[in-house]
Amino acid sequence: LKTNAAIVGLGLMGGSLGQALRRSGRYRVIGIARRAATLRDAKRLGAIDEGSIHFQEAAKASIVVLATPVASIVPTLRRLLPFLKPGTIVTDVGSVKGSILRDIAKLRLPKNVHFIGSHPLAGSHRKGVAAAQRDLFKGATCVVIPFGKAPRAPVLALWKAAGARTLLLNAERHDRAVAVTSHLPHVLAHALVHTVMSDKDRLLLKNLAAGSFRDMTRVASSDPDYWADIFQANLPAVRLALRQFRRELNRLESSLSRPALRLLLKKSYAFRQPLFASAS
Amino acid sequence: LKTNAAIVGLGLMGGSLGQALRRSGRYRVIGIARRAATLRDAKRLGAIDEGSIHFQEAAKASIVVLATPVASIVPTLRRLLPFLKPGTIVTDVGSVKGSILRDIAKLRLPKNVHFIGSHPLAGSHRKGVAAAQRDLFKGATCVVIPFGKAPRAPVLALWKAAGARTLLLNAERHDRAVAVTSHLPHVLAHALVHTVMSDKDRLLLKNLAAGSFRDMTRVASSDPDYWADIFQANLPAVRLALRQFRRELNRLESSLSRPALRLLLKKSYAFRQPLFASAS
Repeated sequence: LKTNAAIVGLGLMGGSLGQALRRSGRYRVIGIARRAATLRDAKRLGAIDEGSIHFQEAAKASIVVLATPVASIVPTLRRLLPFLKPGTIVTDVGSVKGSILRDIAKLRLPKNVHFIGSHPLAGSHRKGVAAAQRDLFKGATCVVIPFGKAPRAPVLALWKAAGARTLLLNAERHDRAVAVTSHLPHVLAHALVHTVMSDKDRLLLKNLAAGSFRDMTRVASSDPDYWADIFQANLPAVRLALRQFRRELNRLESSLSRPALRLLLKKSYAFRQPLFASAS
Repeated sequence: LKTNAAIVGLGLMGGSLGQALRRSGRYRVIGIARRAATLRDAKRLGAIDEGSIHFQEAAKASIVVLATPVASIVPTLRRLLPFLKPGTIVTDVGSVKGSILRDIAKLRLPKNVHFIGSHPLAGSHRKGVAAAQRDLFKGATCVVIPFGKAPRAPVLALWKAAGARTLLLNAERHDRAVAVTSHLPHVLAHALVHTVMSDKDRLLLKNLAAGSFRDMTRVASSDPDYWADIFQANLPAVRLALRQFRRELNRLESSLSRPALRLLLKKSYAFRQPLFASAS
Protein backbone atom coordinates (compact mmCIF):
# COMPACT_ATOMS: atom_id res chain seq x y z
CA LEU A 1 0.00 0.00 0.00
CA LYS A 2 1.36 3.42 -0.96
CA THR A 3 1.79 6.29 1.46
CA ASN A 4 -0.03 9.48 0.46
CA ALA A 5 2.47 12.34 0.39
CA ALA A 6 1.42 15.92 -0.31
CA ILE A 7 3.98 18.32 -1.75
CA VAL A 8 3.08 21.97 -1.35
CA GLY A 9 4.98 24.09 -3.85
CA LEU A 10 6.02 22.52 -7.14
CA GLY A 11 9.27 24.19 -8.12
CA LEU A 12 12.64 22.56 -8.72
CA MET A 13 12.69 20.96 -5.26
CA GLY A 14 9.05 19.92 -5.00
CA GLY A 15 8.92 18.68 -8.58
CA SER A 16 12.12 16.66 -8.27
CA LEU A 17 10.95 15.14 -4.99
CA GLY A 18 7.61 14.19 -6.52
CA GLN A 19 9.33 12.45 -9.42
CA ALA A 20 11.68 10.57 -7.10
CA LEU A 21 8.93 9.48 -4.69
CA ARG A 22 6.67 8.28 -7.47
CA ARG A 23 9.51 6.34 -9.04
CA SER A 24 10.23 4.61 -5.71
CA GLY A 25 6.82 2.96 -6.05
CA ARG A 26 6.07 3.61 -2.39
CA TYR A 27 4.31 6.96 -2.52
CA ARG A 28 1.25 8.43 -4.13
CA VAL A 29 2.00 12.14 -4.64
CA ILE A 30 -0.59 14.88 -4.24
CA GLY A 31 0.71 18.20 -5.56
CA ILE A 32 -0.56 21.53 -4.26
CA ALA A 33 0.40 24.71 -6.11
CA ARG A 34 -1.01 28.18 -6.60
CA ARG A 35 -1.36 27.96 -10.35
CA ALA A 36 -3.24 25.36 -12.39
CA ALA A 37 -0.58 25.62 -15.11
CA THR A 38 2.07 24.44 -12.64
CA LEU A 39 -0.08 21.43 -11.77
CA ARG A 40 -0.48 20.55 -15.44
CA ASP A 41 3.28 20.76 -15.99
CA ALA A 42 3.94 18.70 -12.86
CA LYS A 43 1.51 16.02 -14.03
CA ARG A 44 3.06 15.92 -17.49
CA LEU A 45 6.58 15.63 -15.99
CA GLY A 46 5.56 12.74 -13.77
CA ALA A 47 6.02 14.73 -10.56
CA ILE A 48 2.50 14.17 -9.14
CA ASP A 49 -0.32 11.66 -9.26
CA GLU A 50 -2.96 14.32 -8.71
CA GLY A 51 -2.90 18.03 -8.12
CA SER A 52 -4.96 20.82 -6.68
CA ILE A 53 -4.82 24.54 -6.02
CA HIS A 54 -6.70 23.97 -2.75
CA PHE A 55 -4.92 23.44 0.55
CA GLN A 56 -7.65 21.13 1.83
CA GLU A 57 -6.31 18.41 -0.49
CA ALA A 58 -3.52 17.98 2.07
CA ALA A 59 -6.14 16.23 4.22
CA LYS A 60 -5.57 13.13 2.07
CA ALA A 61 -1.91 12.89 3.05
CA SER A 62 -0.19 11.34 6.05
CA ILE A 63 3.02 13.23 5.24
CA VAL A 64 3.21 16.78 3.90
CA VAL A 65 6.34 18.39 2.44
CA LEU A 66 6.46 22.19 2.33
CA ALA A 67 8.62 22.80 -0.73
CA THR A 68 8.27 26.58 -0.87
CA PRO A 69 10.94 29.27 -0.53
CA VAL A 70 12.19 29.80 3.04
CA ALA A 71 10.08 32.89 3.74
CA SER A 72 6.84 31.08 2.80
CA ILE A 73 7.30 27.91 4.87
CA VAL A 74 5.68 29.12 8.11
CA PRO A 75 2.86 31.13 6.44
CA THR A 76 2.09 28.08 4.30
CA LEU A 77 1.99 25.79 7.31
CA ARG A 78 -0.33 28.23 9.10
CA ARG A 79 -2.80 28.10 6.21
CA LEU A 80 -2.57 24.30 5.97
CA LEU A 81 -3.14 23.55 9.66
CA PRO A 82 -6.97 23.58 9.63
CA PHE A 83 -7.01 20.85 6.99
CA LEU A 84 -4.44 18.35 8.25
CA LYS A 85 -5.75 15.05 9.53
CA PRO A 86 -4.67 13.76 12.96
CA GLY A 87 -1.26 12.09 12.91
CA THR A 88 0.04 14.03 9.94
CA ILE A 89 3.79 14.64 9.78
CA VAL A 90 4.85 17.89 8.14
CA THR A 91 8.36 18.61 6.92
CA ASP A 92 10.01 21.16 4.63
CA VAL A 93 13.04 21.65 2.39
CA GLY A 94 14.25 24.99 3.76
CA SER A 95 17.94 25.94 3.91
CA VAL A 96 17.61 27.53 7.36
CA LYS A 97 16.13 25.91 10.42
CA GLY A 98 16.49 27.88 13.69
CA SER A 99 14.26 30.79 12.77
CA ILE A 100 11.68 28.50 11.13
CA LEU A 101 11.43 26.22 14.16
CA ARG A 102 11.09 29.23 16.49
CA ASP A 103 8.23 30.55 14.38
CA ILE A 104 6.59 27.12 14.24
CA ALA A 105 6.84 26.83 18.03
CA LYS A 106 4.80 30.04 18.22
CA LEU A 107 2.12 28.54 15.94
CA ARG A 108 1.23 25.98 18.65
CA LEU A 109 0.61 22.95 16.45
CA PRO A 110 -2.30 20.70 17.47
CA LYS A 111 -0.99 17.75 19.58
CA ASN A 112 -1.57 15.25 16.79
CA VAL A 113 0.22 17.19 14.02
CA HIS A 114 4.01 17.09 13.99
CA PHE A 115 6.65 19.16 12.26
CA ILE A 116 10.18 17.98 11.67
CA GLY A 117 12.71 19.93 9.62
CA SER A 118 14.44 18.72 6.46
CA HIS A 119 17.16 20.29 4.37
CA PRO A 120 18.16 18.28 1.32
CA LEU A 121 21.58 19.54 0.16
CA ALA A 122 20.78 19.53 -3.50
CA GLY A 123 19.67 22.20 -5.86
CA SER A 124 20.55 24.28 -8.84
CA HIS A 125 20.36 27.90 -9.83
CA ARG A 126 17.57 26.83 -12.18
CA LYS A 127 14.06 26.98 -10.87
CA GLY A 128 10.52 25.90 -11.61
CA VAL A 129 9.02 22.47 -12.10
CA ALA A 130 10.36 22.39 -15.67
CA ALA A 131 13.87 22.13 -14.15
CA ALA A 132 12.91 19.12 -11.99
CA GLN A 133 15.27 16.13 -12.11
CA ARG A 134 14.19 12.84 -10.61
CA ASP A 135 17.80 12.15 -9.60
CA LEU A 136 18.31 15.51 -7.88
CA PHE A 137 18.49 13.93 -4.42
CA LYS A 138 20.26 10.73 -5.43
CA GLY A 139 23.37 10.39 -3.26
CA ALA A 140 22.78 13.84 -1.74
CA THR A 141 22.75 14.41 2.00
CA CYS A 142 19.44 15.39 3.56
CA VAL A 143 19.79 16.90 7.00
CA VAL A 144 16.82 16.06 9.22
CA ILE A 145 16.23 18.31 12.22
CA PRO A 146 14.13 16.72 14.99
CA PHE A 147 11.64 19.03 16.69
CA GLY A 148 9.69 18.32 19.85
CA LYS A 149 8.19 14.84 19.88
CA ALA A 150 7.77 14.49 16.11
CA PRO A 151 8.34 10.89 14.95
CA ARG A 152 11.40 10.76 12.69
CA ALA A 153 10.93 7.49 10.87
CA PRO A 154 8.41 8.66 8.22
CA VAL A 155 10.63 11.60 7.22
CA LEU A 156 13.82 9.53 7.13
CA ALA A 157 11.98 6.93 5.00
CA LEU A 158 10.76 9.60 2.60
CA TRP A 159 14.24 11.01 1.92
CA LYS A 160 15.71 7.55 1.58
CA ALA A 161 13.01 6.70 -0.96
CA ALA A 162 14.11 9.82 -2.86
CA GLY A 163 17.69 8.48 -2.91
CA ALA A 164 19.25 10.71 -0.25
CA ARG A 165 21.46 9.84 2.72
CA THR A 166 20.00 11.28 5.92
CA LEU A 167 21.84 12.98 8.76
CA LEU A 168 20.23 14.07 12.05
CA LEU A 169 21.39 17.44 13.39
CA ASN A 170 20.02 20.08 15.71
CA ALA A 171 18.98 23.40 14.19
CA GLU A 172 21.81 25.47 15.61
CA ARG A 173 24.56 23.19 14.40
CA HIS A 174 22.89 22.85 10.99
CA ASP A 175 22.51 26.60 10.58
CA ARG A 176 26.11 27.28 11.57
CA ALA A 177 27.41 24.65 9.17
CA VAL A 178 25.42 25.71 6.11
CA ALA A 179 26.27 29.35 6.84
CA VAL A 180 29.91 28.42 6.13
CA THR A 181 29.49 25.83 3.36
CA SER A 182 26.63 27.41 1.44
CA HIS A 183 25.50 30.88 2.56
CA LEU A 184 29.02 32.31 2.77
CA PRO A 185 29.92 31.16 -0.78
CA HIS A 186 26.76 32.87 -2.03
CA VAL A 187 27.67 36.16 -0.32
CA LEU A 188 31.23 35.94 -1.69
CA ALA A 189 29.98 35.26 -5.22
CA HIS A 190 27.82 38.40 -5.14
CA ALA A 191 30.65 40.47 -3.67
CA LEU A 192 32.95 39.24 -6.45
CA VAL A 193 30.46 40.22 -9.15
CA HIS A 194 30.10 43.66 -7.52
CA THR A 195 33.91 43.98 -7.52
CA VAL A 196 33.91 43.58 -11.31
CA MET A 197 30.84 45.81 -11.74
CA SER A 198 32.36 48.65 -9.73
CA ASP A 199 35.75 48.53 -11.47
CA LYS A 200 36.67 51.47 -13.71
CA ASP A 201 37.70 48.98 -16.41
CA ARG A 202 34.58 46.83 -16.10
CA LEU A 203 33.99 46.41 -19.84
CA LEU A 204 37.43 44.86 -20.23
CA LEU A 205 36.90 42.76 -17.10
CA LYS A 206 33.62 41.45 -18.46
CA ASN A 207 35.41 40.55 -21.65
CA LEU A 208 38.21 38.70 -19.83
CA ALA A 209 36.07 36.90 -17.26
CA ALA A 210 36.80 33.23 -17.83
CA GLY A 211 36.83 29.88 -16.00
CA SER A 212 37.67 30.83 -12.44
CA PHE A 213 35.35 33.85 -12.41
CA ARG A 214 32.57 31.79 -13.97
CA ASP A 215 32.89 28.99 -11.40
CA MET A 216 33.12 31.37 -8.44
CA THR A 217 30.10 33.42 -9.42
CA ARG A 218 27.81 30.66 -10.67
CA VAL A 219 25.71 30.80 -7.49
CA ALA A 220 25.14 34.54 -8.02
CA SER A 221 22.77 33.35 -10.75
CA SER A 222 20.43 31.90 -8.13
CA ASP A 223 17.18 33.71 -7.44
CA PRO A 224 18.07 36.95 -5.54
CA ASP A 225 14.83 37.16 -3.53
CA TYR A 226 15.12 33.56 -2.45
CA TRP A 227 18.66 34.12 -1.21
CA ALA A 228 17.93 37.45 0.47
CA ASP A 229 15.36 35.54 2.54
CA ILE A 230 17.90 32.85 3.44
CA PHE A 231 20.60 35.32 4.49
CA GLN A 232 18.12 37.23 6.61
CA ALA A 233 16.69 34.08 8.19
CA ASN A 234 20.19 32.95 9.19
CA LEU A 235 21.74 36.33 9.94
CA PRO A 236 23.80 35.64 13.09
CA ALA A 237 25.38 32.51 11.60
CA VAL A 238 26.08 34.23 8.26
CA ARG A 239 27.76 37.13 10.08
CA LEU A 240 29.86 34.69 12.10
CA ALA A 241 30.89 32.87 8.92
CA LEU A 242 31.89 36.19 7.36
CA ARG A 243 33.99 37.00 10.42
CA GLN A 244 35.79 33.65 10.11
CA PHE A 245 36.29 34.18 6.39
CA ARG A 246 37.80 37.64 6.88
CA ARG A 247 40.26 36.23 9.38
CA GLU A 248 41.42 33.63 6.86
CA LEU A 249 41.52 36.16 4.03
CA ASN A 250 43.65 38.49 6.16
CA ARG A 251 46.02 35.66 6.96
CA LEU A 252 46.41 34.78 3.27
CA GLU A 253 46.79 38.41 2.25
CA SER A 254 49.47 39.14 4.80
CA SER A 255 51.36 36.08 3.50
CA LEU A 256 51.15 37.08 -0.16
CA SER A 257 54.70 38.40 -0.33
CA ARG A 258 56.17 35.79 2.02
CA PRO A 259 57.33 32.18 1.69
CA ALA A 260 54.51 31.17 4.07
CA LEU A 261 52.10 31.67 1.15
CA ARG A 262 53.16 28.38 -0.44
CA LEU A 263 52.43 26.45 2.71
CA LEU A 264 48.99 28.04 3.14
CA LEU A 265 48.06 27.27 -0.47
CA LYS A 266 49.34 23.72 -0.14
CA LYS A 267 47.23 23.17 2.97
CA SER A 268 43.99 24.31 1.34
CA TYR A 269 44.88 22.38 -1.81
CA ALA A 270 45.42 19.20 0.22
CA PHE A 271 42.21 19.68 2.21
CA ARG A 272 40.07 20.40 -0.83
CA GLN A 273 41.55 17.82 -3.19
CA PRO A 274 39.91 14.62 -1.80
CA LEU A 275 36.53 16.28 -1.08
CA PHE A 276 35.23 16.13 -4.62
CA ALA A 277 37.51 13.48 -6.04
CA SER A 278 34.98 12.26 -8.57
CA ALA A 279 33.35 15.55 -9.57
CA SER A 280 36.64 17.58 -9.41
CA LEU B 1 55.14 26.07 -46.51
CA LYS B 2 54.76 25.51 -42.78
CA THR B 3 56.13 27.85 -40.14
CA ASN B 4 58.50 26.20 -37.67
CA ALA B 5 57.22 26.88 -34.13
CA ALA B 6 59.14 25.75 -31.06
CA ILE B 7 57.22 25.17 -27.84
CA VAL B 8 59.38 25.13 -24.73
CA GLY B 9 57.59 23.34 -21.89
CA LEU B 10 55.07 20.64 -22.78
CA GLY B 11 52.46 20.74 -20.05
CA LEU B 12 48.74 21.36 -20.41
CA MET B 13 49.27 24.68 -22.20
CA GLY B 14 52.23 23.75 -24.40
CA GLY B 15 50.76 20.37 -25.29
CA SER B 16 47.35 21.80 -26.17
CA LEU B 17 48.94 24.56 -28.26
CA GLY B 18 51.08 22.02 -30.12
CA GLN B 19 48.02 19.90 -30.95
CA ALA B 20 46.06 22.95 -32.13
CA LEU B 21 48.91 24.34 -34.28
CA ARG B 22 49.59 20.99 -35.91
CA ARG B 23 45.92 20.52 -36.68
CA SER B 24 45.78 23.96 -38.34
CA GLY B 25 48.14 22.57 -40.99
CA ARG B 26 50.17 25.74 -40.93
CA TYR B 27 52.85 24.91 -38.36
CA ARG B 28 55.53 22.35 -37.83
CA VAL B 29 55.95 21.99 -34.07
CA ILE B 30 59.29 21.40 -32.37
CA GLY B 31 58.84 20.50 -28.71
CA ILE B 32 61.50 21.19 -26.11
CA ALA B 33 61.12 19.66 -22.64
CA ARG B 34 63.39 18.63 -19.80
CA ARG B 35 62.42 14.98 -19.82
CA ALA B 36 62.54 12.53 -22.70
CA ALA B 37 59.38 10.84 -21.36
CA THR B 38 57.45 14.08 -21.80
CA LEU B 39 58.62 14.29 -25.42
CA ARG B 40 57.47 10.71 -26.06
CA ASP B 41 54.05 11.45 -24.57
CA ALA B 42 53.79 14.68 -26.56
CA LYS B 43 54.65 12.85 -29.78
CA ARG B 44 52.13 10.12 -29.07
CA LEU B 45 49.42 12.71 -28.31
CA GLY B 46 50.06 14.57 -31.55
CA ALA B 47 51.36 17.67 -29.81
CA ILE B 48 54.74 17.86 -31.60
CA ASP B 49 56.36 16.87 -34.89
CA GLU B 50 59.75 16.43 -33.31
CA GLY B 51 61.14 16.89 -29.83
CA SER B 52 64.37 17.48 -28.01
CA ILE B 53 65.70 18.03 -24.53
CA HIS B 54 68.25 20.49 -25.98
CA PHE B 55 67.57 24.22 -26.15
CA GLN B 56 69.62 24.58 -29.33
CA GLU B 57 66.76 22.94 -31.25
CA ALA B 58 64.98 26.27 -30.96
CA ALA B 59 67.40 27.50 -33.64
CA LYS B 60 65.15 25.75 -36.19
CA ALA B 61 62.14 27.90 -35.31
CA SER B 62 61.06 31.34 -36.43
CA ILE B 63 58.61 31.59 -33.55
CA VAL B 64 59.20 30.28 -30.02
CA VAL B 65 56.51 29.90 -27.35
CA LEU B 66 57.64 29.72 -23.71
CA ALA B 67 54.96 27.53 -22.17
CA THR B 68 56.50 27.16 -18.73
CA PRO B 69 55.15 28.29 -15.36
CA VAL B 70 55.38 32.05 -14.75
CA ALA B 71 58.51 31.90 -12.59
CA SER B 72 60.46 30.01 -15.27
CA ILE B 73 59.67 32.21 -18.27
CA VAL B 74 62.54 34.69 -17.95
CA PRO B 75 65.18 32.12 -16.85
CA THR B 76 64.15 29.93 -19.80
CA LEU B 77 64.43 32.82 -22.22
CA ARG B 78 67.89 33.66 -20.86
CA ARG B 79 69.09 30.11 -21.55
CA LEU B 80 67.52 30.08 -25.03
CA LEU B 81 68.96 33.39 -26.24
CA PRO B 82 72.35 32.08 -27.45
CA PHE B 83 70.62 29.67 -29.82
CA LEU B 84 67.90 31.80 -31.42
CA LYS B 85 68.36 32.67 -35.08
CA PRO B 86 68.09 36.31 -36.22
CA GLY B 87 64.50 37.46 -36.65
CA THR B 88 63.04 35.00 -34.15
CA ILE B 89 59.87 36.09 -32.35
CA VAL B 90 59.49 34.79 -28.80
CA THR B 91 56.24 34.78 -26.86
CA ASP B 92 54.90 33.10 -23.72
CA VAL B 93 51.65 31.98 -22.08
CA GLY B 94 52.17 33.57 -18.64
CA SER B 95 49.27 34.91 -16.56
CA VAL B 96 51.23 38.00 -15.47
CA LYS B 97 52.99 40.44 -17.74
CA GLY B 98 54.38 43.59 -16.04
CA SER B 99 57.04 41.88 -13.95
CA ILE B 100 58.01 39.55 -16.81
CA LEU B 101 58.45 42.40 -19.30
CA ARG B 102 60.51 44.38 -16.78
CA ASP B 103 62.82 41.40 -16.31
CA ILE B 104 63.06 40.83 -20.05
CA ALA B 105 63.96 44.49 -20.57
CA LYS B 106 66.91 43.91 -18.23
CA LEU B 107 68.03 40.91 -20.34
CA ARG B 108 68.83 43.27 -23.27
CA LEU B 109 67.63 41.07 -26.13
CA PRO B 110 69.76 41.13 -29.30
CA LYS B 111 68.30 43.65 -31.80
CA ASN B 112 67.07 40.89 -34.11
CA VAL B 113 65.26 38.81 -31.47
CA HIS B 114 61.86 40.05 -30.33
CA PHE B 115 59.67 39.23 -27.36
CA ILE B 116 55.95 39.89 -27.26
CA GLY B 117 53.72 38.73 -24.41
CA SER B 118 50.76 36.37 -24.71
CA HIS B 119 48.21 35.26 -22.16
CA PRO B 120 45.66 32.79 -23.46
CA LEU B 121 42.70 32.80 -21.08
CA ALA B 122 42.22 29.08 -21.03
CA GLY B 123 43.34 26.39 -18.68
CA SER B 124 42.30 23.81 -16.20
CA HIS B 125 43.36 22.71 -12.75
CA ARG B 126 44.71 19.59 -14.47
CA LYS B 127 48.29 19.66 -15.58
CA GLY B 128 50.81 17.83 -17.71
CA VAL B 129 50.83 16.97 -21.39
CA ALA B 130 48.45 14.06 -20.74
CA ALA B 131 45.76 16.67 -19.95
CA ALA B 132 46.29 18.48 -23.28
CA GLN B 133 43.17 19.24 -25.31
CA ARG B 134 43.49 20.38 -28.89
CA ASP B 135 40.38 22.57 -28.44
CA LEU B 136 41.63 24.26 -25.25
CA PHE B 137 42.05 27.63 -26.98
CA LYS B 138 39.08 27.36 -29.32
CA GLY B 139 36.92 30.45 -28.81
CA ALA B 140 39.09 31.59 -25.87
CA THR B 141 40.51 35.08 -25.67
CA CYS B 142 44.27 35.41 -25.96
CA VAL B 143 45.60 38.73 -24.73
CA VAL B 144 48.66 39.85 -26.68
CA ILE B 145 50.92 42.42 -25.02
CA PRO B 146 53.13 44.38 -27.43
CA PHE B 147 56.64 45.10 -26.20
CA GLY B 148 59.16 47.43 -27.78
CA LYS B 149 59.32 47.07 -31.57
CA ALA B 150 58.35 43.39 -31.72
CA PRO B 151 56.24 42.60 -34.81
CA ARG B 152 52.79 41.49 -33.71
CA ALA B 153 51.49 39.72 -36.81
CA PRO B 154 53.26 36.34 -36.32
CA VAL B 155 51.97 36.05 -32.73
CA LEU B 156 48.43 37.09 -33.63
CA ALA B 157 48.48 34.56 -36.49
CA LEU B 158 49.69 31.79 -34.17
CA TRP B 159 46.87 32.27 -31.66
CA LYS B 160 44.31 32.56 -34.41
CA ALA B 161 45.57 29.29 -35.87
CA ALA B 162 45.04 27.76 -32.41
CA GLY B 163 41.41 28.95 -32.48
CA ALA B 164 41.65 31.91 -30.10
CA ARG B 165 40.36 35.47 -30.46
CA THR B 166 43.17 37.95 -29.86
CA LEU B 167 43.04 41.19 -27.90
CA LEU B 168 45.89 43.71 -27.68
CA LEU B 169 46.46 45.27 -24.24
CA ASN B 170 49.30 46.92 -22.40
CA ALA B 171 50.85 45.02 -19.51
CA GLU B 172 49.51 47.23 -16.75
CA ARG B 173 45.91 47.09 -17.89
CA HIS B 174 46.17 43.33 -18.46
CA ASP B 175 47.64 42.70 -15.01
CA ARG B 176 45.00 44.83 -13.28
CA ALA B 177 42.19 43.07 -15.12
CA VAL B 178 43.32 39.49 -14.50
CA ALA B 179 44.03 40.36 -10.86
CA VAL B 180 40.27 40.93 -10.49
CA THR B 181 38.87 38.27 -12.83
CA SER B 182 41.30 35.45 -12.10
CA HIS B 183 43.84 36.01 -9.31
CA LEU B 184 41.27 37.37 -6.83
CA PRO B 185 38.94 34.35 -7.32
CA HIS B 186 41.89 32.07 -6.62
CA VAL B 187 42.75 33.89 -3.39
CA LEU B 188 39.09 33.79 -2.30
CA ALA B 189 38.82 30.08 -3.04
CA HIS B 190 41.80 29.32 -0.82
CA ALA B 191 40.49 31.60 1.95
CA LEU B 192 37.13 29.80 1.77
CA VAL B 193 38.78 26.38 2.12
CA HIS B 194 40.78 27.70 5.09
CA THR B 195 37.53 28.96 6.65
CA VAL B 196 36.16 25.42 6.60
CA MET B 197 39.47 23.90 7.74
CA SER B 198 39.74 26.23 10.74
CA ASP B 199 36.14 25.73 11.89
CA LYS B 200 35.57 23.85 15.14
CA ASP B 201 32.94 21.74 13.38
CA ARG B 202 35.09 21.03 10.30
CA LEU B 203 34.23 17.32 10.03
CA LEU B 204 30.55 18.16 9.74
CA LEU B 205 31.33 21.00 7.33
CA LYS B 206 33.34 18.65 5.12
CA ASN B 207 30.41 16.29 5.13
CA LEU B 208 27.92 19.01 4.15
CA ALA B 209 30.06 20.76 1.53
CA ALA B 210 27.97 20.57 -1.63
CA GLY B 211 27.42 22.40 -4.91
CA SER B 212 28.16 26.01 -4.06
CA PHE B 213 31.23 25.16 -1.98
CA ARG B 214 32.49 22.82 -4.70
CA ASP B 215 32.10 25.43 -7.45
CA MET B 216 33.67 28.22 -5.40
CA THR B 217 36.72 26.22 -4.38
CA ARG B 218 37.39 24.36 -7.61
CA VAL B 219 40.33 26.63 -8.44
CA ALA B 220 41.92 25.83 -5.07
CA SER B 221 42.72 22.49 -6.73
CA SER B 222 45.15 24.21 -9.09
CA ASP B 223 48.87 23.72 -8.50
CA PRO B 224 49.81 25.71 -5.34
CA ASP B 225 53.38 26.52 -6.37
CA TYR B 226 52.27 27.72 -9.75
CA TRP B 227 49.73 30.07 -8.18
CA ALA B 228 52.05 31.30 -5.43
CA ASP B 229 54.35 32.46 -8.24
CA ILE B 230 51.50 34.23 -10.02
CA PHE B 231 50.27 36.05 -6.90
CA GLN B 232 53.81 37.16 -6.09
CA ALA B 233 54.53 38.25 -9.67
CA ASN B 234 51.38 40.42 -9.67
CA LEU B 235 51.39 41.53 -6.06
CA PRO B 236 50.37 45.21 -6.29
CA ALA B 237 47.43 44.44 -8.59
CA VAL B 238 46.30 41.48 -6.45
CA ARG B 239 46.39 43.68 -3.34
CA LEU B 240 44.39 46.35 -5.12
CA ALA B 241 41.81 43.75 -6.21
CA LEU B 242 41.54 42.51 -2.63
CA ARG B 243 40.97 46.08 -1.45
CA GLN B 244 38.15 46.51 -3.99
CA PHE B 245 36.67 43.16 -3.01
CA ARG B 246 36.67 44.03 0.70
CA ARG B 247 34.83 47.25 -0.03
CA GLU B 248 32.10 45.35 -1.87
CA LEU B 249 31.95 42.64 0.78
CA ASN B 250 31.55 45.29 3.49
CA ARG B 251 28.77 46.93 1.54
CA LEU B 252 26.92 43.61 1.15
CA GLU B 253 27.47 42.67 4.77
CA SER B 254 26.19 45.97 6.12
CA SER B 255 23.06 45.48 3.99
CA LEU B 256 22.38 41.92 5.15
CA SER B 257 19.64 42.92 7.57
CA ARG B 258 18.23 45.70 5.40
CA PRO B 259 15.87 45.89 2.42
CA ALA B 260 18.81 47.22 0.33
CA LEU B 261 20.15 43.64 0.27
CA ARG B 262 17.59 42.62 -2.35
CA LEU B 263 18.61 45.40 -4.68
CA LEU B 264 22.32 44.58 -4.33
CA LEU B 265 21.71 40.89 -5.06
CA LYS B 266 19.50 41.74 -8.01
CA LYS B 267 22.19 43.98 -9.48
CA SER B 268 24.89 41.32 -9.32
CA TYR B 269 22.43 38.70 -10.58
CA ALA B 270 21.55 40.89 -13.57
CA PHE B 271 25.20 41.67 -14.34
CA ARG B 272 26.33 38.07 -14.09
CA GLN B 273 23.38 36.43 -15.85
CA PRO B 274 24.21 37.28 -19.49
CA LEU B 275 27.98 36.76 -19.10
CA PHE B 276 27.92 33.02 -19.37
CA ALA B 277 24.55 32.53 -21.01
CA SER B 278 25.54 29.34 -22.78
CA ALA B 279 27.75 27.73 -20.12
CA SER B 280 25.59 28.90 -17.15
